[in-house]
Amino acid sequence: MSNIKLIVAYDGTGYGGWQRQSNRPTIQGELEEKISLIANEKVVVHGAGRTDAGVHAYGMAASFHTRSTVSCEGFLRGLNSLLADDIRVLDAEEVAAGFHARKSASGKCYIYNLAVGGVQIPTERLYSYNVFGSFDVDAVVKSLQVVVGSHDFSSFEATGSRDMDRTTGRGAVRRIFTAAVEILDNEPLQLQIKIAGDGFLRHMVRNIVGTLIEVGQGRRSVNDFHDVLKAKDRSLAGPTAPAKGLFLKEVYY
Amino acid sequence: MSNIKLIVAYDGTGYGGWQRQSNRPTIQGELEEKISLIANEKVVVHGAGRTDAGVHAYGMAASFHTRSTVSCEGFLRGLNSLLADDIRVLDAEEVAAGFHARKSASGKCYIYNLAVGGVQIPTERLYSYNVFGSFDVDAVVKSLQVVVGSHDFSSFEATGSRDMDRTTGRGAVRRIFTAAVEILDNEPLQLQIKIAGDGFLRHMVRNIVGTLIEVGQGRRSVNDFHDVLKAKDRSLAGPTAPAKGLFLKEVYY
Repeated sequence: MSNIKLIVAYDGTGYGGWQRQSNRPTIQGELEEKISLIANEKVVVHGAGRTDAGVHAYGMAASFHTRSTVSCEGFLRGLNSLLADDIRVLDAEEVAAGFHARKSASGKCYIYNLAVGGVQIPTERLYSYNVFGSFDVDAVVKSLQVVVGSHDFSSFEATGSRDMDRTTGRGAVRRIFTAAVEILDNEPLQLQIKIAGDGFLRHMVRNIVGTLIEVGQGRRSVNDFHDVLKAKDRSLAGPTAPAKGLFLKEVYY
Repeated sequence: MSNIKLIVAYDGTGYGGWQRQSNRPTIQGELEEKISLIANEKVVVHGAGRTDAGVHAYGMAASFHTRSTVSCEGFLRGLNSLLADDIRVLDAEEVAAGFHARKSASGKCYIYNLAVGGVQIPTERLYSYNVFGSFDVDAVVKSLQVVVGSHDFSSFEATGSRDMDRTTGRGAVRRIFTAAVEILDNEPLQLQIKIAGDGFLRHMVRNIVGTLIEVGQGRRSVNDFHDVLKAKDRSLAGPTAPAKGLFLKEVYY
């Protein structure tokens, strides 16, 4: 029995998210189907997390146990030949029997692409969210600083969700390692918001970004953003930013 | 009668290029159809150039004459509401009666996105060309320097083509203002090749890039690239790089 870890990149546009569903294609579903074909046995794939429908990934991690003697290189090449070109396996390696893509993860890094301009560039329409009007980048940078460190992120958790992580006893407390805004281009303005932490509640990045956008547009102050975090009340935060701007960049072990 | 200049961005993936064709959708065809609807008269749109099928644009320029009294803002909003979201009009302005998007242009700038790695990132598969193996960026940078200035680019002109520009009497001589390689990312390696000049022969950028790739891969020397340019012989150059990596960035007036 071998335990294999995969690094998977995908364009989430055409999928109902990571988690297997009976009625539409998902990343987990596609991987399980193709791996089972190669391994010639039914295989269950564990992802490091469950990205929502439309969310993309540069480096999702996943793992599966198999009795197959196919090599890691064999799985890598076989999967990239069987999968549609919007899912690619970047790496496959054998790991210790106890390794589990989700349970062994020590953290994750997400990126959110934000464009500010009158009209969105067509070639970016599937991978970036476009907002209109003037935008105060400094205010966004200042707001974002407050999320670094350990906080109860209830204000940014999807309403009604009790993520599987909530069973770990840490409630809604997560530790954010870094949170930064990078200006990729100025004309039109293109921002990349990067947030890395030891775990994320459901919709947490998208809810933080949705609230930051309101700060950028001058509809909230930096202090208001800080107050929202402290209040632990989802009703005070902004809307959930669209899935298409979000990329799971990396999973840490 | 007013003369209106448009700046148009598009995702060329789903189109048969710029130029109107009877059997498949094109950028010119879509624009003419929607402009004619708004203007309530048949309108002919002149583009600054004819991008090939699958080539993208950040800033194609186009112009059309119309008797309509619809304002530039009216055309801008009307077009962006009627066009599919893979074509966007970024700007519309009234210009002098004698302005012609192609004839008045003083130059153009193109970008080619090149990725080097074992597996291409899915979210870049439609906008970047991926090559495998090791890659010598320095050799590409050195090779590219030789194209700057006025040269006869016959070696990089599509076989059998006699572009409409050839009727201007300048033959295959074009002046390149700048040619540069920018490293966008290192892991995996992502390059952006930028070439700006007073005009381009058919497939010229893609043929230069196709030959540069062979230099990067060590299959040609820097001197060989220089010799190819001097030889004025298409048969000596490398293959035409795929359309999907190419973007018309800007048209100069």
